[in-house]
Amino acid sequence: MEFLVEISINLPPETDPALREDLYAREGARAAELTASGALSRIWRVPGRRANWSLYRVADATELHGLLASLPLYAWMDITVHPLATHPADPYRD
Amino acid sequence: MEFLVEISINLPPETDPALREDLYAREGARAAELTASGALSRIWRVPGRRANWSLYRVADATELHGLLASLPLYAWMDITVHPLATHPADPYRD
Amino acid sequence: MEFLVEISINLPPETDPALREDLYAREGARAAELTASGALSRIWRVPGRRANWSLYRVADATELHGLLASLPLYAWMDITVHPLATHPADPYRD
Amino acid sequence: MEFLVEISINLPPETDPALREDLYAREGARAAELTASGALSRIWRVPGRRANWSLYRVADATELHGLLASLPLYAWMDITVHPLATHPADPYRD
Amino acid sequence: MEFLVEISINLPPETDPALREDLYAREGARAAELTASGALSRIWRVPGRRANWSLYRVADATELHGLLASLPLYAWMDITVHPLATHPADPYRD
Amino acid sequence: MEFLVEISINLPPETDPALREDLYAREGARAAELTASGALSRIWRVPGRRANWSLYRVADATELHGLLASLPLYAWMDITVHPLATHPADPYRD
Amino acid sequence: MEFLVEISINLPPETDPALREDLYAREGARAAELTASGALSRIWRVPGRRANWSLYRVADATELHGLLASLPLYAWMDITVHPLATHPADPYRD
Amino acid sequence: MEFLVEISINLPPETDPALREDLYAREGARAAELTASGALSRIWRVPGRRANWSLYRVADATELHGLLASLPLYAWMDITVHPLATHPADPYRD
Amino acid sequence: MEFLVEISINLPPETDPALREDLYAREGARAAELTASGALSRIWRVPGRRANWSLYRVADATELHGLLASLPLYAWMDITVHPLATHPADPYRD
Amino acid sequence: MEFLVEISINLPPETDPALREDLYAREGARAAELTASGALSRIWRVPGRRANWSLYRVADATELHGLLASLPLYAWMDITVHPLATHPADPYRD
Repeated sequence: MEFLVEISINLPPETDPALREDLYAREGARAAELTASGALSRIWRVPGRRANWSLYRVADATELHGLLASLPLYAWMDITVHPLATHPADPYRD
Repeated sequence: MEFLVEISINLPPETDPALREDLYAREGARAAELTASGALSRIWRVPGRRANWSLYRVADATELHGLLASLPLYAWMDITVHPLATHPADPYRD
Repeated sequence: MEFLVEISINLPPETDPALREDLYAREGARAAELTASGALSRIWRVPGRRANWSLYRVADATELHGLLASLPLYAWMDITVHPLATHPADPYRD
Repeated sequence: MEFLVEISINLPPETDPALREDLYAREGARAAELTASGALSRIWRVPGRRANWSLYRVADATELHGLLASLPLYAWMDITVHPLATHPADPYRD
Repeated sequence: MEFLVEISINLPPETDPALREDLYAREGARAAELTASGALSRIWRVPGRRANWSLYRVADATELHGLLASLPLYAWMDITVHPLATHPADPYRD
Repeated sequence: MEFLVEISINLPPETDPALREDLYAREGARAAELTASGALSRIWRVPGRRANWSLYRVADATELHGLLASLPLYAWMDITVHPLATHPADPYRD
Repeated sequence: MEFLVEISINLPPETDPALREDLYAREGARAAELTASGALSRIWRVPGRRANWSLYRVADATELHGLLASLPLYAWMDITVHPLATHPADPYRD
Repeated sequence: MEFLVEISINLPPETDPALREDLYAREGARAAELTASGALSRIWRVPGRRANWSLYRVADATELHGLLASLPLYAWMDITVHPLATHPADPYRD
Repeated sequence: MEFLVEISINLPPETDPALREDLYAREGARAAELTASGALSRIWRVPGRRANWSLYRVADATELHGLLASLPLYAWMDITVHPLATHPADPYRD
Repeated sequence: MEFLVEISINLPPETDPALREDLYAREGARAAELTASGALSRIWRVPGRRANWSLYRVADATELHGLLASLPLYAWMDITVHPLATHPADPYRD
């Protein structure tokens, strides 16, 4: 099942630069793992915001929650999950 | 440039069934054209709503507006367009 | 997977009483089928509103959409779907 | 009377890990008591959020308030209570 | 248990005056019954709106729903129910 | 004139317990004075929140503001004031 | 006591022009009466909208409701009333 | 003074096509007059909506209201006006 | 041109009392200057809030911004500016 | 492609004045560069707020994001990007 995930990152501007760099490096590495596994199929930046839209393909909301909670920046994220149903016009429909 | 498009269809329940069927048939045909041309790359249903999330790849907002306004159901649609910037972790980044 | 579904029914007050009665009778019958099949496990009224909260257990959002769209009052419903993940403290967790 | 309860937990990310662990351990224990007593009949996670939906069966809003205020994380919770009326189609209606 | 009820009446301005008068007369009579029975203990107008705040004392949300649905103008009402818990400082606390 | 007053208390969870206890004790004492004077005629808790609904009977909004600003927790309160007009069906109408 | 009143007029565009003209003529006449009596002390247009901000000086919300309900366009108005308390810096404070 | 104006056009889909065409033709002609006079300096479409952002340079809100109310589609417009102050970094600052 | 200005003051409750007193004293003095100059013609308190409604008469939004930014509490204010157009029924219309 | 950009600056009032001055000086210098390059074509202040409306002309949302993220105050900005399509009545249409 696919989910559209809206993520906003609220790391305070005054965060220690070394911590921030470490968090973002680990976030990038974790995203690469999720991409490699096929769970995270697309990701885009929201222009002008520390935010993104992501497209996940997972078994269900429980697996999705586990993956999102595994993100190093999870504690600073505000996440909204939109469940998706297949559409007859979708060219990638299973 | 890619755009995430949120579409809600507000055709009144009391619409003449023949008109409704004709509109939806033409909508499906137009969606197939947009898919074939590569402008409409993904589309999902919002469960429980007469609504969808679509992913468009077009030159800019002017081309996007032209494509959306060409949809047979356009007059009954409430559309919100989210511009997308590329994200370094996206596996399909150009 | 379970979904919490918020449904508001917007049948206009001036609807023909016979049509209304027929729609509600068929809605009740369809709800009974969904209950019998185990898809609809709980349903509550929102006090003071023509609205309800429902709890569905289905394979995914696509199956859920199909069930909701099969409801006789679907065309007059405003539906919001909340995906649910399992919680370790839930007494009915699978 | 049943209540649907929407709980969002706003413990700051910079909370001392030992305090956090202690709070969550005590929260889990208290939830188990509420489950055992029958007051808390179902609980689900909101995917991607430190939030849950809970289903309570209590005498009235005063008893409910007392139970919610007894939760160890109560001071960091943002809670919305939805009162529920019975629905004729509910399979578990008393 | 007490409930604070916010009611907004959306009878269209073009409603037939005789129907409107009849509906309001029956609404007033029903409100008098609810007042006499003790279920409706206070009611105030929202200045400038066809709306009111009401205070109900009933067994639970199911009884409340039944009373609200019995109001002659119910089909044109938009109702929000706020459950109330007792407060230690309330002079009328039971 | 009566006013319905919605009060939410935002004292941070990390407030010194002695200060908190002192503030709440003085708040309770001040509420008792307002009750005794007849200005505060009813007060209810919002279940699950550090919030209440209050009913005030005062000369006008200026007197009301003075009373609310005299509350020991006023600096941490988020207050919304709803002016009330008399309703012909109110059993306590003057 | 003074009230700031926000009024939005929702007369449908397809209203019969003669009815519209009559309603607006009577609205202007009633506004002139309220101005002459001192109840309506200021009124401004919201630019670009069929809406206005008005300043009323009346005994209380009950008198205000009576005056607003006496406006010929009342049935098509969406009104929000903001109660005002005196401010020590106001040059027109009584 | 400049104003940023957000306009949404709500002409119903079922409007007579001849009336619609006439309204839009007259709207275009009036926009051309406002452009020629220098009052309307920029206008953009909101992609996917029957809506636009406009930039006006007028004496004040009263002149602006007069110009907006002169638009043939005014009765079907939902308009929000944003007043603008000059910014020291603006290359076109007077 | 007149503007209706909605101001909410968010000085944290834990602000040093001497700083608070100094800020409010200077705020009062500046308000008196704006009143004396005729720029600030009316000001009211929002009951129960650290907020006010003000009425300004200035040349344009640029002058208004300068005056508001000159207020000693400006850095803690959340301000919404409503531009006003003259209304034919206003008794103080120029 | 043009974008309308709404920027709100949330630098805390208690920020060290030297840091604030440095940030604003660098912000002004960067804005001048963006203006000189033609990317930032107009900018206005929102009266009464630490906020602005900006008009950008860039290749796409990815370039826009890069420019916005290069602003020295970016970490404290809350930014909303509105994509713009050309309008046939725009006098500056390409």
